[in-house]
Amino acid sequence: METITIVGMGLIGSSLARNIKDKKLAKTLIAADINEEVCKKVIELEIADIITDDLARAVEDADMVVIAVPVGAMENVAKDIVPYVKEGAIITDTGSVKVSVIDAIKPFIGAKAEFVPAHPIAGTEFSGPESGFTELFNGRWCVLTPLPETGIKAVEEVTKLWESCGSMVEIMDPRHHDLVLGITSHLPHLIAYTIVGTANELEDDIKSEVIKFSASGFRDFTRIAASDPIMWRDVFLNNKEAVLEILQRFNEDLTALQRAIRKGDGDYLYRRFKDTRAIRKEIIEQGQA
Amino acid sequence: METITIVGMGLIGSSLARNIKDKKLAKTLIAADINEEVCKKVIELEIADIITDDLARAVEDADMVVIAVPVGAMENVAKDIVPYVKEGAIITDTGSVKVSVIDAIKPFIGAKAEFVPAHPIAGTEFSGPESGFTELFNGRWCVLTPLPETGIKAVEEVTKLWESCGSMVEIMDPRHHDLVLGITSHLPHLIAYTIVGTANELEDDIKSEVIKFSASGFRDFTRIAASDPIMWRDVFLNNKEAVLEILQRFNEDLTALQRAIRKGDGDYLYRRFKDTRAIRKEIIEQGQA
Repeated sequence: METITIVGMGLIGSSLARNIKDKKLAKTLIAADINEEVCKKVIELEIADIITDDLARAVEDADMVVIAVPVGAMENVAKDIVPYVKEGAIITDTGSVKVSVIDAIKPFIGAKAEFVPAHPIAGTEFSGPESGFTELFNGRWCVLTPLPETGIKAVEEVTKLWESCGSMVEIMDPRHHDLVLGITSHLPHLIAYTIVGTANELEDDIKSEVIKFSASGFRDFTRIAASDPIMWRDVFLNNKEAVLEILQRFNEDLTALQRAIRKGDGDYLYRRFKDTRAIRKEIIEQGQA
Repeated sequence: METITIVGMGLIGSSLARNIKDKKLAKTLIAADINEEVCKKVIELEIADIITDDLARAVEDADMVVIAVPVGAMENVAKDIVPYVKEGAIITDTGSVKVSVIDAIKPFIGAKAEFVPAHPIAGTEFSGPESGFTELFNGRWCVLTPLPETGIKAVEEVTKLWESCGSMVEIMDPRHHDLVLGITSHLPHLIAYTIVGTANELEDDIKSEVIKFSASGFRDFTRIAASDPIMWRDVFLNNKEAVLEILQRFNEDLTALQRAIRKGDGDYLYRRFKDTRAIRKEIIEQGQA
């Protein structure tokens, strides 16, 4: 690639930038962010060749544009940049939801550029350009959900980009992606936010003890619930259907356990608790633990 | 201490045994377990001086007896051993619930021995004597919930034992302990068991993808939900009241988030997700992260 532009320099954008710089994946790397503070930090970090808050100018020379903004901001960014993108350029994104992002971006692109929707499944509980690091994508999956009209060459280029970052690439239908991620990522985050929120509303004396003794299980939820609130608000607003469906199943299962506790049904509790060990074993065997 | 006897050689019992041996906290360490397979493993591991499945003989010379069995087995163990315990010996336990364990053990002890209920807040998702290790209690809290009649000397001896294992000791009212741990430990485990159980019942093709992409949040729950099913069954049966109360608050909060997702109320979601970051910060500041 001659020129790659990344729009949005948060955790994901800045980690991708570090990879592109370190591994020389483009001759010129342009970083764009509408937030001036973020631009200043990116300049200090020296992880891009050109840094600007002018999205239109940032994309006009790009062979590939990576939109790495929260899902809810995708539509406005697409509206702002597509008129300035070169004919035939590749546009890709990093959104955690795919159907709604495709619906938001695709109408602006039309036949002008190639669109390869993508989701690098990686992250930490930290946000902002200073939280990024080169190894973030190492050994992690990146899911591409190309459209029927997406050219094979464009899919290959985006595949190459993420594989160069250390990711394993998987092609998936966008609707299926949203269902699977609704289960593996969105529901766990919602539950973690809920339980930490419940604790947050306890009386102050109990709350201080909850923090003190958090290593007994609660702690792990607080890490997940420290993730970026804007990113996650947008995920839930944009993957409503899948999240609400899996949440309903979760609620039914929780009600059944609640009833078993109330009735003192130890056999039921034991059976449920025993079955969950198998999944952990498979995750360890597949090297994802 | 001349002689310490540990009854129950699982993760906690065997980790304690390793500490007593390594740090020479007793002249003689006796390990007892009614499971012959466990006894065989403990012999192989060489982490006790005497290993037996005869609980009565195991305790008759002990100056301190540590009962490290699942909460639901405490009563039977107490019934079996107390008649053979020396007058004035110290009996302590490691149960994750305190009120019900006190109710189960205390009637058998009467004035014969000193009873110091204890809960070392430490563990992993692995069980059995081979999973134990010396550093398990390092930097972790151990809560003691002495009874009004418990002698100060006995409390000091148990404090010394756990401090020698690297723990920080805290004295608490048993009912209060059960409430705090209900929030920090029991509810998180129940939620983790539920979400992993929900995933476990998905159709096989989706389930294999959930395992594949588990690093996006789900994975952290599977670790917690791989904990010992017997131990956790007993916890929920024996801390019913506190767990059901906090579970009700959790359910209300989850319902509110569910409604906000359904209605597309982004402001509410953002506010809830933002507030939970503060607790994480405090946990990090207190060195419990």
